[in-house]
Amino acid sequence: MPGEEPHPVYFLSDSTGITAETLGNTLLTQFPASNFARTTVPFIDTVEQAQELVNVIDGQAAEGLTPIVFSTVVGADIRQTLATCKGAMVDLIGTHVGQLELALGEQASGEPGRAHGLGNAVRYQSRMTAVEYAMEHDDGQSLRALEKAQVILVAPSRCGKTPTTMYLALQHGIFAANFPLVDEDFDREGLPAPLRPFVEKCFGLTSNPQRLSQIRTERRRDSAYASLRQCGFELRSAERLYVAHGIPYLNSASVSIEEMAATILQQMHLRD
Amino acid sequence: MPGEEPHPVYFLSDSTGITAETLGNTLLTQFPASNFARTTVPFIDTVEQAQELVNVIDGQAAEGLTPIVFSTVVGADIRQTLATCKGAMVDLIGTHVGQLELALGEQASGEPGRAHGLGNAVRYQSRMTAVEYAMEHDDGQSLRALEKAQVILVAPSRCGKTPTTMYLALQHGIFAANFPLVDEDFDREGLPAPLRPFVEKCFGLTSNPQRLSQIRTERRRDSAYASLRQCGFELRSAERLYVAHGIPYLNSASVSIEEMAATILQQMHLRD
Repeated sequence: MPGEEPHPVYFLSDSTGITAETLGNTLLTQFPASNFARTTVPFIDTVEQAQELVNVIDGQAAEGLTPIVFSTVVGADIRQTLATCKGAMVDLIGTHVGQLELALGEQASGEPGRAHGLGNAVRYQSRMTAVEYAMEHDDGQSLRALEKAQVILVAPSRCGKTPTTMYLALQHGIFAANFPLVDEDFDREGLPAPLRPFVEKCFGLTSNPQRLSQIRTERRRDSAYASLRQCGFELRSAERLYVAHGIPYLNSASVSIEEMAATILQQMHLRD
Repeated sequence: MPGEEPHPVYFLSDSTGITAETLGNTLLTQFPASNFARTTVPFIDTVEQAQELVNVIDGQAAEGLTPIVFSTVVGADIRQTLATCKGAMVDLIGTHVGQLELALGEQASGEPGRAHGLGNAVRYQSRMTAVEYAMEHDDGQSLRALEKAQVILVAPSRCGKTPTTMYLALQHGIFAANFPLVDEDFDREGLPAPLRPFVEKCFGLTSNPQRLSQIRTERRRDSAYASLRQCGFELRSAERLYVAHGIPYLNSASVSIEEMAATILQQMHLRD
């Protein structure tokens, strides 16, 4: 029965644990009435470690709620040890590997996963270079090499440009710059000069005046900058600019950086 | 049979597609002999869109290799439509939800997932604040509020401090600062002064001289900074400093930022 007592949840991995956490948490969002106490154990690489975890899990199972165990462990001996536990074992690799072996006509390697390891060195290095680029081009700091950008996020202050830029760089290796719109930009005709050659790379962010005012207030309480009036003016002006120049945009007030990034990748045709 | 021709792979989602990509790619790393041509389709929210995808997938299935389809679609009508396709359908939600319903005694909501949406607003906001903190405290730029850091990454230039800091902030909401070690730090006795009050928050990075020299050469060719001799000196000195002050450290040369972050979270006890 769903209730107050949190269900113990384990994310077990012989690697970083990222995959177990990602799918595990996605599955748990389907159960909004339950509470969970989460534990991630990455880098499990011996049967002894696995046996210790089984003992902990069995202890909890004996005391109360059955622990849920999401595992992406690949190695056969560690998997067999974990499989003996009295938790509800959700084996995210073993469950699907057989179907893929059939479809691909290849046997699974059984090697511990390094899906979040260095992997393709060229691709990894391009992500690191993209982070460096994003740092250098944050908030219009440097207008050098704007032509190298694959996307330029444009928005008034505090609409989410910086974290979205970082996410695009870190996760997708996208060369993303961002450029702040300020009052002077709204007084003038047209786009800010540095953006003009690159209008087709621009993607706009907007927000709701209330939300923006709230975020700005955390930074500078009782300032004109944070006032509802100023926020409303900037957002209306920015949206007018986007529309006038055919710049696609979205409202960051009710979506996450992950959702913004997915939308930007799709609309700007930046998927690998 | 594994071969030259790439297997079409689809990651389908009614949300961002992040979960489908993460588990799908983890599973595919088990099949190193096969080639894949990947397509992610996020935000599938109508049966018509689903039917169009089925047509594309069936067209490919008729022509050659069976497409592999990883789906995290939750909505029943879209799932049913996708299930009619002639690809190998790996339903990452449907496969596991029944087991969880039993273990939790709660029925799955069936609502499209927002595992990567705003979710818990407090947690989301703390991630955004952590990104801002990481930007302000990158590369020892600001020594203000170093006491707020949960971890301070310490290393010579180009050992991976910045991207690892950003990853800890973005993905885990960790307040991470980073601090560069330079020649003067090695000449003096003890830790650099700004770090002394916070030695228990420090985590060191090191690298291999060859790897570091290669990375520095990309930035400044033929410089003393990039020379093997200088890189070797800095890395040896940094490691000596870490050992002398009991600072845990790891070598970033052969691990990814995801692996470094997972290790840092574990060793510094920073897991939620």
